[in-house]
Amino acid sequence: MAYILGIDLGGTKVEAAVFDDERKILGRHRAKTEAWRTEEEVFERIAGVAAQAITNSQVEPHQIAALGMGTPGPLDPQTGYIIETANLPFKNFPLGPRLSERFNCPFAMANDVDAGTYGEYKVGAAQGASIVLGVFVGTGIGGGIIMHNEIYGGFNKNAAEIGHVVIRAEGPPDKRGVPGTLEYYTSRTGITRTLKEAIKKGKKSKISKKVDKKTGAISSGSIRECYDAGDALVKKVVDRAAKYLGLAIGGYVNVMSPEIIVMGGGVVEAMGDPFVKRIEKYAHKVAFSFSMNGVKIVKAQLGDDAGITGAAMLAKELLSKQPAQEVPFAGHAG
Amino acid sequence: MAYILGIDLGGTKVEAAVFDDERKILGRHRAKTEAWRTEEEVFERIAGVAAQAITNSQVEPHQIAALGMGTPGPLDPQTGYIIETANLPFKNFPLGPRLSERFNCPFAMANDVDAGTYGEYKVGAAQGASIVLGVFVGTGIGGGIIMHNEIYGGFNKNAAEIGHVVIRAEGPPDKRGVPGTLEYYTSRTGITRTLKEAIKKGKKSKISKKVDKKTGAISSGSIRECYDAGDALVKKVVDRAAKYLGLAIGGYVNVMSPEIIVMGGGVVEAMGDPFVKRIEKYAHKVAFSFSMNGVKIVKAQLGDDAGITGAAMLAKELLSKQPAQEVPFAGHAG
Repeated sequence: MAYILGIDLGGTKVEAAVFDDERKILGRHRAKTEAWRTEEEVFERIAGVAAQAITNSQVEPHQIAALGMGTPGPLDPQTGYIIETANLPFKNFPLGPRLSERFNCPFAMANDVDAGTYGEYKVGAAQGASIVLGVFVGTGIGGGIIMHNEIYGGFNKNAAEIGHVVIRAEGPPDKRGVPGTLEYYTSRTGITRTLKEAIKKGKKSKISKKVDKKTGAISSGSIRECYDAGDALVKKVVDRAAKYLGLAIGGYVNVMSPEIIVMGGGVVEAMGDPFVKRIEKYAHKVAFSFSMNGVKIVKAQLGDDAGITGAAMLAKELLSKQPAQEVPFAGHAG
Repeated sequence: MAYILGIDLGGTKVEAAVFDDERKILGRHRAKTEAWRTEEEVFERIAGVAAQAITNSQVEPHQIAALGMGTPGPLDPQTGYIIETANLPFKNFPLGPRLSERFNCPFAMANDVDAGTYGEYKVGAAQGASIVLGVFVGTGIGGGIIMHNEIYGGFNKNAAEIGHVVIRAEGPPDKRGVPGTLEYYTSRTGITRTLKEAIKKGKKSKISKKVDKKTGAISSGSIRECYDAGDALVKKVVDRAAKYLGLAIGGYVNVMSPEIIVMGGGVVEAMGDPFVKRIEKYAHKVAFSFSMNGVKIVKAQLGDDAGITGAAMLAKELLSKQPAQEVPFAGHAG
């Protein structure tokens, strides 16, 4: 029996789980990342969560055959280095090799959203598809592309940044100075910002009572609640987000011609089927019928487990490619 | 010596050329497509142009080892069927098998812009690149993607429709009802339409004297002339086209991470380096530095010969994959 460790690293939390050969989770653990700490401290927290997941699984540490991880990027999946991230202290940090050394097994590594898309491809909503586009709408917009059984990274290994395209060229600039990006309008951050700006300008909305007084945040759940109650402002902003997502996805269909588009993330899960249906409507408006022929737009199935599952499946794939005794340890370890 | 026939089919003209093993053109011929004729008549015109090119090359017809063609799409490159086109009478027409039968040799087939991009990849500006994005700005916007030595068609075999993405979501609809597409603003058709609308509204511009009285067309050369003379309206419209092309290409870099972007077509050739520089500036604004790292944006090298050259190189590749005696004739022929 080959046991696999899957790790999902985010700016807020880190989670790990041990999977058996049947992709069953035997044990898991999660903790706050505490990203304000130093590189070494955060590394120890990650390793600690992984060790606790192994303990919880009642598998002996030496029985872990490989580990996989999904992390924020950009990163180099071959060397296992995180190049930099917006929400973690790592800069040119050999996270893959270091974890490989700690747990004495080979590693596989991918961008967190790539890992999530890979999870949906291997055991979720996109099984068997030749070309998969994953679209995850949460705090930001994340994307993943699977082609012919592999994560597509492109020339610089960090492709699929599908939120960072211009959807409204004369729109306002984002933090980087890019006008009217898809992420700017359609992420939870974007939806929340638009709602709060409108309230500030005097627009009346039930959502004004849902703003967290401490953090200023508005939860996806509250947005859904006000949407269902027919709140005009919320409806307008959310419907526009769905429209822009649909227009962008239709364009991706014309350019990349995927077989399936998997939609996930907190906003999609909170807003549910009507949101996805609206996205689909606009995608069909843009996409040519010959490019849309036989193409499905579906909701993700794995929810919060997409990351750890995809990470574990990447590690499993690593083992299947090479006989166990030949799996090399990470080149940069030790 | 294996001689190859390359055919470039367009709505206005059809061209054919015979290439030798050193990619040298031995003879060529071109004629008007006369697309208003019936399928069979247009087919005979294409076959006639090809036969004349062979005659001009002084190669014996039986010495043609394979033929390649670039045609408008959508099409099925495997079966050689043109599914439909906007500017030709063909509908579910087996152009590949029919030409294969006529010239007694196997065929390769691709979308015309894919063929052009392939030509640039094989013998032009994009040689040796792992992932190529071709951007051709002419009457419309055409795109081509090469990945790992092959044209990328995606699930529905007709990917890379890069002009048919939304760049300005609240912009006016195109003929298909899609708001603010890249093609709408940046093709010669789009630039011309915008100029004429502005003149109609009373804007003064030197370009008003350059409108062809018969056809209403404005040539790319006239646009360049007025641009260089500092005409304010022309400058505004052309600069916006370059900006939107740059914003879109920056997005493609984030999503697809190509190694090189090859820019060609009548508008790019007429407007020259300043146009490409401006596109580059906006692409860099949108693209992440890690995705842009080592990526080149260059002008195409083959000009009008990109199509016949790419088509011939596709046929050459077909031969190289299979020993000559084993190359099957088109499955649908006869």
